[in-house]
Amino acid sequence: MERMDKGLAFMLRYENVAWYENGEVRILDRRIYPRKVEFVTCRNHHEVTQAIKDMVTQSAGPYTAAAMGMALAAYECKDKSEAEQIGYLTEAAYTISHARPTTVQRMTLITGGCLDAAKKAIAAGEDVSEKIVEHTIEANNLRYKKINLIAEHLVDMFPQNGTVMTQCFGETIVGMMLKAARERGNNVRIFCPETRPYFQGARLTATVCHEMGFDTTVITDNMPAFVMKKENVDVFTSAADVICMDGHVVNKVGTYQIAIAAKYTGIPYFVTGAPDRGHTTIDTVKIEMRDPDFVLQAMGVKTAADGLKGYYPAFDITPPELVSGVVTDTGIYTPYDLESYFKKGTMGEFEMIL
Amino acid sequence: MERMDKGLAFMLRYENVAWYENGEVRILDRRIYPRKVEFVTCRNHHEVTQAIKDMVTQSAGPYTAAAMGMALAAYECKDKSEAEQIGYLTEAAYTISHARPTTVQRMTLITGGCLDAAKKAIAAGEDVSEKIVEHTIEANNLRYKKINLIAEHLVDMFPQNGTVMTQCFGETIVGMMLKAARERGNNVRIFCPETRPYFQGARLTATVCHEMGFDTTVITDNMPAFVMKKENVDVFTSAADVICMDGHVVNKVGTYQIAIAAKYTGIPYFVTGAPDRGHTTIDTVKIEMRDPDFVLQAMGVKTAADGLKGYYPAFDITPPELVSGVVTDTGIYTPYDLESYFKKGTMGEFEMIL
Repeated sequence: MERMDKGLAFMLRYENVAWYENGEVRILDRRIYPRKVEFVTCRNHHEVTQAIKDMVTQSAGPYTAAAMGMALAAYECKDKSEAEQIGYLTEAAYTISHARPTTVQRMTLITGGCLDAAKKAIAAGEDVSEKIVEHTIEANNLRYKKINLIAEHLVDMFPQNGTVMTQCFGETIVGMMLKAARERGNNVRIFCPETRPYFQGARLTATVCHEMGFDTTVITDNMPAFVMKKENVDVFTSAADVICMDGHVVNKVGTYQIAIAAKYTGIPYFVTGAPDRGHTTIDTVKIEMRDPDFVLQAMGVKTAADGLKGYYPAFDITPPELVSGVVTDTGIYTPYDLESYFKKGTMGEFEMIL
Repeated sequence: MERMDKGLAFMLRYENVAWYENGEVRILDRRIYPRKVEFVTCRNHHEVTQAIKDMVTQSAGPYTAAAMGMALAAYECKDKSEAEQIGYLTEAAYTISHARPTTVQRMTLITGGCLDAAKKAIAAGEDVSEKIVEHTIEANNLRYKKINLIAEHLVDMFPQNGTVMTQCFGETIVGMMLKAARERGNNVRIFCPETRPYFQGARLTATVCHEMGFDTTVITDNMPAFVMKKENVDVFTSAADVICMDGHVVNKVGTYQIAIAAKYTGIPYFVTGAPDRGHTTIDTVKIEMRDPDFVLQAMGVKTAADGLKGYYPAFDITPPELVSGVVTDTGIYTPYDLESYFKKGTMGEFEMIL
């Protein structure tokens, strides 16, 4: 299978997300990218776990890092007996998958897949680390391919050479969307709100868009509405952390506000991803509140006076009335009828990571 | 007359905006406040002009700085003949008032008032600098008093112990609003969006609110809509750079977006100030585009990769349909009937500076 990261920006190529080689895992440090291009080197799977905890990588990055951490764990125990190797890897799978409390379930699917690949390799007397890496490339290929399908449906919604606004960093979907646009000769112009307080829009999305050859402009988070009106934005699009079956979209804080502005200025909002059967309604989603002090600084420099309070909801909720369409691998659905998606086909948990 | 800055926060007290004393003008450096409390010391009126150009002070600050610059100019020429003093001060008035191109008209009113005070003092053989300072305190008193009237009408719109959202830094109106609330025992809770790219909300407004004893929370500019909903915000309020006679409001970028979110979430938006007869419709207002590179940094630290474009409209435009009321010194008006304001009374150009 041809590698699906071909032609994508630096950040989206498998080696640059996280990579196992010669007893080390290198993870691109997204906390400082693109101002500095540095990799964190991990020499055992506990260091990989810590790197995931420390937010060295984010979005879909941790899933690849976890898999590469399993390849490293296999290297650590390669001289042990078969039974000991399986025991060691089982424990490593638990450790790595529990790096962050909110992603344990999805992470367990990743490390579990690697564990299965390892067991097969051990039984066949093959290089376990190598087989885990191969398995991960295949899994990434499958994921990128599914996301490519989403991207094709999304780009169908863009006018030729129009203007698109994004929100935060939709990892692979941004790259695939641009690849699809490029293949059609559709030179869309892109506006990226910077996405405070972490600046993922300014740092990550804008870098990917620029590198892939598109006219890209960074704006601050108080500008989307004005830019929509003044610069004739045609489409607003974002990925989602959760798309509930009732059509509510949970995504990086700011999405709700931009969706309101889009509705007001008459622009469609397309969310990419797959509906989540685990959330029948929005009521089962708990919005994570992060360290409020983080809002009181910017790029490590304090902004507000001492003693002031911050407030940091990581995500917000956009109701279905603001969602023009849910763009999936099998087509575009109204947020009011997401059951239809499951009638046409399903997307595995793993492939849902955009 | 009792000084009208009594009981207001540090930043709003006349001495801490800009002050002439002993042949020097000291201007609070708002570019670094409140993380550092430093004054820029100017030893001649050219240095004052340069400080205004360099944005050492902003909002209504430059007007006081300009007046104090005139007091300093009087000190510089105090040993010259009467005619020479008047010539020197006339030239200084021109220099100072032309520090920034967009405020020449309003600045000329300030320096002109100081020049008149100087002429009287010269004729009467009084200390010219001292008389200019006295004149400026009186002018500030008059302005603060008018703004106090606006504040009283605004606070009438706040529920008791409710939640208020502001935008950017409305200089005196913020202090007066809180003073009025405090006098009524109305402990409103305040949310301040940080106002990128300069962070005036986080740095200036929040500091003033906190210092005046109110429960104050800083949020990033992508959070207002979510906070409105989640934290039950009752009122959104902002000052304005221009309130056109057709009800369009020009204010710091972000106001439009918050006003849209307020409308969507069912919260009123009250703008403070006075309608501007110089702008019959919004068509005569030119939105200033500032250096786009400023959007690509935060607190002096670069965010985006090299080669990316920024976009920096300093202001945006909120249409009358999003404005619940224009709060003036003589009461609250609908944005569709601002002529009524002029039937009830007028506010001088000078006092319009909030």
